[in-house]
Amino acid sequence: MQDKYIDLDYAKLDIDRYKRRGCSETVFCECKTNKQLIEIFSEFKNQGQNILGTRASKTQAQALKEVFSDIFYDECARTITLIQKEIEKVGEVALCTAGTGDIPVAQEALRTAEFFGSRVKSYYDIGIAGIHRLFDKIEEIRKANVVIVVAGFEGALPSIVAGLVDIPVIAVPTSIGYGASFQGLSALLTMINSCVEGITTVNIDNGFSAGYSANQINRKIEGK
Amino acid sequence: MQDKYIDLDYAKLDIDRYKRRGCSETVFCECKTNKQLIEIFSEFKNQGQNILGTRASKTQAQALKEVFSDIFYDECARTITLIQKEIEKVGEVALCTAGTGDIPVAQEALRTAEFFGSRVKSYYDIGIAGIHRLFDKIEEIRKANVVIVVAGFEGALPSIVAGLVDIPVIAVPTSIGYGASFQGLSALLTMINSCVEGITTVNIDNGFSAGYSANQINRKIEGK
Amino acid sequence: MQDKYIDLDYAKLDIDRYKRRGCSETVFCECKTNKQLIEIFSEFKNQGQNILGTRASKTQAQALKEVFSDIFYDECARTITLIQKEIEKVGEVALCTAGTGDIPVAQEALRTAEFFGSRVKSYYDIGIAGIHRLFDKIEEIRKANVVIVVAGFEGALPSIVAGLVDIPVIAVPTSIGYGASFQGLSALLTMINSCVEGITTVNIDNGFSAGYSANQINRKIEGK
Amino acid sequence: MQDKYIDLDYAKLDIDRYKRRGCSETVFCECKTNKQLIEIFSEFKNQGQNILGTRASKTQAQALKEVFSDIFYDECARTITLIQKEIEKVGEVALCTAGTGDIPVAQEALRTAEFFGSRVKSYYDIGIAGIHRLFDKIEEIRKANVVIVVAGFEGALPSIVAGLVDIPVIAVPTSIGYGASFQGLSALLTMINSCVEGITTVNIDNGFSAGYSANQINRKIEGK
Amino acid sequence: MQDKYIDLDYAKLDIDRYKRRGCSETVFCECKTNKQLIEIFSEFKNQGQNILGTRASKTQAQALKEVFSDIFYDECARTITLIQKEIEKVGEVALCTAGTGDIPVAQEALRTAEFFGSRVKSYYDIGIAGIHRLFDKIEEIRKANVVIVVAGFEGALPSIVAGLVDIPVIAVPTSIGYGASFQGLSALLTMINSCVEGITTVNIDNGFSAGYSANQINRKIEGK
Amino acid sequence: MQDKYIDLDYAKLDIDRYKRRGCSETVFCECKTNKQLIEIFSEFKNQGQNILGTRASKTQAQALKEVFSDIFYDECARTITLIQKEIEKVGEVALCTAGTGDIPVAQEALRTAEFFGSRVKSYYDIGIAGIHRLFDKIEEIRKANVVIVVAGFEGALPSIVAGLVDIPVIAVPTSIGYGASFQGLSALLTMINSCVEGITTVNIDNGFSAGYSANQINRKIEGK
Amino acid sequence: MQDKYIDLDYAKLDIDRYKRRGCSETVFCECKTNKQLIEIFSEFKNQGQNILGTRASKTQAQALKEVFSDIFYDECARTITLIQKEIEKVGEVALCTAGTGDIPVAQEALRTAEFFGSRVKSYYDIGIAGIHRLFDKIEEIRKANVVIVVAGFEGALPSIVAGLVDIPVIAVPTSIGYGASFQGLSALLTMINSCVEGITTVNIDNGFSAGYSANQINRKIEGK
Amino acid sequence: MQDKYIDLDYAKLDIDRYKRRGCSETVFCECKTNKQLIEIFSEFKNQGQNILGTRASKTQAQALKEVFSDIFYDECARTITLIQKEIEKVGEVALCTAGTGDIPVAQEALRTAEFFGSRVKSYYDIGIAGIHRLFDKIEEIRKANVVIVVAGFEGALPSIVAGLVDIPVIAVPTSIGYGASFQGLSALLTMINSCVEGITTVNIDNGFSAGYSANQINRKIEGK
Repeated sequence: MQDKYIDLDYAKLDIDRYKRRGCSETVFCECKTNKQLIEIFSEFKNQGQNILGTRASKTQAQALKEVFSDIFYDECARTITLIQKEIEKVGEVALCTAGTGDIPVAQEALRTAEFFGSRVKSYYDIGIAGIHRLFDKIEEIRKANVVIVVAGFEGALPSIVAGLVDIPVIAVPTSIGYGASFQGLSALLTMINSCVEGITTVNIDNGFSAGYSANQINRKIEGK
Repeated sequence: MQDKYIDLDYAKLDIDRYKRRGCSETVFCECKTNKQLIEIFSEFKNQGQNILGTRASKTQAQALKEVFSDIFYDECARTITLIQKEIEKVGEVALCTAGTGDIPVAQEALRTAEFFGSRVKSYYDIGIAGIHRLFDKIEEIRKANVVIVVAGFEGALPSIVAGLVDIPVIAVPTSIGYGASFQGLSALLTMINSCVEGITTVNIDNGFSAGYSANQINRKIEGK
Repeated sequence: MQDKYIDLDYAKLDIDRYKRRGCSETVFCECKTNKQLIEIFSEFKNQGQNILGTRASKTQAQALKEVFSDIFYDECARTITLIQKEIEKVGEVALCTAGTGDIPVAQEALRTAEFFGSRVKSYYDIGIAGIHRLFDKIEEIRKANVVIVVAGFEGALPSIVAGLVDIPVIAVPTSIGYGASFQGLSALLTMINSCVEGITTVNIDNGFSAGYSANQINRKIEGK
Repeated sequence: MQDKYIDLDYAKLDIDRYKRRGCSETVFCECKTNKQLIEIFSEFKNQGQNILGTRASKTQAQALKEVFSDIFYDECARTITLIQKEIEKVGEVALCTAGTGDIPVAQEALRTAEFFGSRVKSYYDIGIAGIHRLFDKIEEIRKANVVIVVAGFEGALPSIVAGLVDIPVIAVPTSIGYGASFQGLSALLTMINSCVEGITTVNIDNGFSAGYSANQINRKIEGK
Repeated sequence: MQDKYIDLDYAKLDIDRYKRRGCSETVFCECKTNKQLIEIFSEFKNQGQNILGTRASKTQAQALKEVFSDIFYDECARTITLIQKEIEKVGEVALCTAGTGDIPVAQEALRTAEFFGSRVKSYYDIGIAGIHRLFDKIEEIRKANVVIVVAGFEGALPSIVAGLVDIPVIAVPTSIGYGASFQGLSALLTMINSCVEGITTVNIDNGFSAGYSANQINRKIEGK
Repeated sequence: MQDKYIDLDYAKLDIDRYKRRGCSETVFCECKTNKQLIEIFSEFKNQGQNILGTRASKTQAQALKEVFSDIFYDECARTITLIQKEIEKVGEVALCTAGTGDIPVAQEALRTAEFFGSRVKSYYDIGIAGIHRLFDKIEEIRKANVVIVVAGFEGALPSIVAGLVDIPVIAVPTSIGYGASFQGLSALLTMINSCVEGITTVNIDNGFSAGYSANQINRKIEGK
Repeated sequence: MQDKYIDLDYAKLDIDRYKRRGCSETVFCECKTNKQLIEIFSEFKNQGQNILGTRASKTQAQALKEVFSDIFYDECARTITLIQKEIEKVGEVALCTAGTGDIPVAQEALRTAEFFGSRVKSYYDIGIAGIHRLFDKIEEIRKANVVIVVAGFEGALPSIVAGLVDIPVIAVPTSIGYGASFQGLSALLTMINSCVEGITTVNIDNGFSAGYSANQINRKIEGK
Repeated sequence: MQDKYIDLDYAKLDIDRYKRRGCSETVFCECKTNKQLIEIFSEFKNQGQNILGTRASKTQAQALKEVFSDIFYDECARTITLIQKEIEKVGEVALCTAGTGDIPVAQEALRTAEFFGSRVKSYYDIGIAGIHRLFDKIEEIRKANVVIVVAGFEGALPSIVAGLVDIPVIAVPTSIGYGASFQGLSALLTMINSCVEGITTVNIDNGFSAGYSANQINRKIEGK
């Protein structure tokens, strides 16, 4: 079985995933040293796979850039991508945020969904304080296969969107807010407790997970 | 100072409040025996004051009814009222609920606001799952001096309402909901964390407090 | 706008939803009186719509049965269905539970997904304590368009399933467990925090929401 | 509908709010870059509107000052104001703090209430440890239309004030305190659970929200 | 060492405590069968010791009464006492409650403090909603050696009392309150976080513990 | 693979576990119907395996008794055992409780450890309030291979025991206690946070898990 | 009334407390600027009162030192004292810590108790992991009038001490510990839930409060 | 008794532990000054004992290195060891991590288990996202006497491992994860709530405790 992954002792690289789940393993950069990241990127690169790194700091990106000149770092999304095979983007994922502060999380979702093969269209700062901004865009949003809604504070936007569309809504709570938002807990509870049907939820600030699931649904709908 | 309240040992009845705060003390019935309630109602009745009892069980209401034939019990609101001086109702408080299950809490607010001298107009089951129901009523709601919004589950309705009106919004979370609503905690956090201005919040299921504060604001606006 | 819903004062029936979102409004029975339920069912029946009631007690079902002889009550799922237009079931939703105690929540998901037009195939009691039971079914599960995974206690099953399939996983935590499961909170956190991609989560014990979202995804994939 | 807001991609400026809700949109500065803030301030300035920025750091204020020489930055309150139309201040909002540490939150409330058109009179450090300090001021406080009470630690001051006045009390918990205050949670719970009528509550450290609601009530009472 | 307690297998009765800590062990009745309680009371009775049982249900009291005709059951306090040696009561413990609903917890404190040898003077329903009721009694309270303050809801009374007296304050939160009181958690946090010096706190509804500690302090002050 | 378990649709009986993990699957009775339990017991019985049922109500035990006359029900422990192959008990597990109220949880541990092949010696009601009771037994406890310590309230006993012995300590928090014990959460946190080495912890009230792990360690030490 | 405090706008100095409560007001330094602290110290100094500042940073101490050369700063305790009238120290407060990490909190208690007039004797690092260290000191501890017990991690030491002495125990949880200690919450819950009588508790890391209450009890016992 | 420990005032060194519990006291470095650490290491060194320091920063290690040239610092594990008597390592402890980010906690467990006399074999990054990596190693893991499983995020790995082995599993939650992992709380709850038998749990990030308990069990099994 051992040829299914590369054993680096501190990490077992799941190179088989491409066959098993249809995509490469993503590299969660947060707790890794530069040395580890370079080694991991090298191994995947040698396999000819595309690579997506998430939660990458600027310092990490710079260290990788010195070795792999062709990586792309999105500082806002904190993602690193290294593309070796062209990605065909299909269908459409709509991506909304309630406020400006939610954009970094949305960008992580965007980079992820695009990496795995979805077209993404974004609608930022259309929160409920000025609901006409949402209504203005709703017809366009309805045309997507799936919609990601990112919101902090009380996190009510996914409920509103879900009441207005007939496509799956993936809700992403963010840690943006005042005191009793408890770093996103309030928004998470709001989304989990929504009385509007058609919403499923991912972890606080986890744009990656939302982008991944949205892409998965979008591609299935497109017959991929 | 002792003449400012009646000392029943287990309770000190604040008969002075009428002068001090402009209204009688409300009787919180939940932890009181029938014997205590009857004694307390008698004392206030002797003072010629109107009486409002909250959180009253059917059994308590029946026990009081036997002694005070003129009380009115609203089983849904769980309130008991005994009116000795006619109440002049002024201005207008709008009272909304997200769902049908939130109505008992709203009714407690209604009975309270009316008891202390406000006209109340109610709009029930206009939650965000079918937001056109709210839009249909919003012009009418805007005419009130203050609006109470009662909601369980994710409790997003107060945020939506506050984004559409220019009057104070008092938000009331209810304990209605599925598992992770944690008996109203989720709705409470939503309301406290709202990114829309103009919302203040009261305790879970506390229709009384919402009705009291709404009445206070409404009457001040009416110059009372 | 008023013709879009029926106003029963305590409830505003969203009869327009059929056009707007492609399906009827579901009736959450838990906080409603028998009288209210009968009135609501009558109104929807008059519209010729199919009706799904959730969280219905046996007593409520009996009261409705006396008026509407053709309703179907699933006591385990606590759902009531009244079918007036035949439902075409398409595609396939896989439905797994970790244990026997999770079955009532799964059944709510099953009734919901079927009501809205999906074929469902269930795999019960395949939890991680005897993981060979899951492996035995995994090939079959992979053929579905989407999989619902219902689990209490530590709620680890959705993570395992997601690691083995390439279809969207909807995770449903249940309130089954010992002390520190805190009525499903532990399972909810497990699912929300999964390090495996492709999982989105709904509320504790909320089979309805899982069934609704799974159906929505399944039907979109089937081109409906 | 598009002319109701200015679309900056990362932000949709709700310039219509002035007509719709009677006041400009407030700029929450915390998660915005200097570049974004300058662009946003420019747009609103071009509309001829007054601007209030909250949660602004010293660095942000300096960056804005370089472009807009006429802004005013209150470092304690962390607010930025740019006044283009004179503001008529009416009525009176009383503003109390329990301790010295609560003053920054109170100042945010003060700047907000004044910005939207209220006169504010402040009473700082009158907490319950030396209750005679409160009694000394209570007659003056009673003359206001509404009172904001800001408190950290156990947050008991709003309850005491509410027991002594007949005007609406808006309670603001702060994150000041020792260990088990849990960054303001304890004070928030105290205020939400008050057994004294007439209190509504806003989020931890949210002076802005308190100032906004107090102003709204104050102006309505003044017939504005 | 074995002669220091009586071994009943399911319980080891600490008959030595009288010598070691100056008083008998108290019997926590809640989880014990009638048979166990009778056996335990018999053993202590044989030792000639006074007995205090707490958290005793009416049924338990009746079962014990049949065997020990001289026990005294206080239904409100849920305490059982069996006195074999006369108790000399010394000094003075003041005992306050905020509301009527807090009285059962206070009564447990009263029975406990008296059992261990303190005089107790009680002041019930003097909560902060009508603070003149407290001021009316404060001179009397100041004469005690120690004061117990029992309060539910937001639990602010101990802070107020501590600000007005120069004797130790023992605060007891109760589980009386609305939704977000979380069965006494809110009151507990309030008391623990008090910014007023001189307060220490015991568990929610734990009148026994407050009575025990107050008695201990009171007797030491009296030189016992 | 299918012959490794019996598929009852609502349950997949893991009859292979005996080979795989050295013991039969335990039946968690709590959420099962009598009909299901009888069917499950029949299947295991047919396999000739011993059966342990946990969390069994009296009613469930009676229903099973009617079919399987040879089962043994321990009402205190809420366990059902059906023994077909004699169990050899080896080594020694010490089993302590802090109080009398913790005994039901301890009994579940005892029944479990004995069922899987350990000798158990119990020491009940030796909590820290009278620590000489523990010291009196400590020499005996030290002779066991492993010790289970069961405690509610503040749950400090495992820490004390671990400081005095050189054998593994398995700590079991119970839900016995006053208000802020939060149904065992306090005791669980105490045990998890112990500064004394050699303690591992199981779930609140989970005597089964403690008994299982203690047996596993005990038997390994005995070379089984 | 105004002569009872000095009004500095941002602070109202309670100079009357000396008469009312027998001691000066303590200055909580944490949220104050150097300028404010200097002004406050000056005012109290002018009144001839002794001054105790708590939670003072090194920087604050240095700023004060430049103005008031005779202040004493204990860096470990983070207290500043300025003594103008000699303090007579009476009786005895015993002060224990479980570990070395708890010493800063204990030192704050020590400085406070001494400031208000108590003799203090400290016993550090006598936690339950090596309980013989406690037993070695217990006779000495018993001679005090009151004992403060400071502990982090699981916070079990106060329970053990209370089981061995017949004097009031004041328990102080600290924020020292591993992950699930949640910055002292675990220790706080342990102390609040103790099944041993004679313990009352103060806030996490609140050595000041413990020292204040211990002094109050100690002095009353000494007849002061 | 005093000769059983060395009294340094701020610390009482339990030199007797070697006899009493079979091993030296471990030094928790986190809250200690360099001066204290050097003194403590000196004392233990003088006793001829081996020393293990945990939670040691790089700075602390450097300070100790200057005095004790023969110490070994593992920066990843944050442990310091000073070996004076050779350690015989027996048996086998298997040590698994779910991800790369969990390795520091695992290394603390490794250093601890080795220090106290166990052979350790590690299996890193074998989490559930690619479960074939675990299956590849499971036969080897089964050969150990006990297995430690370290996991962050949802912490499901211990459950999976326990379902596949027949040796005791010690689960260690880590603080690695996204928002709602709440610094390890989610993983802790998962492990405590596992429905798979044979798991006991230690504190978040507490590799030391896991290593200690695993060593204790391993050595007992080896007859030490």
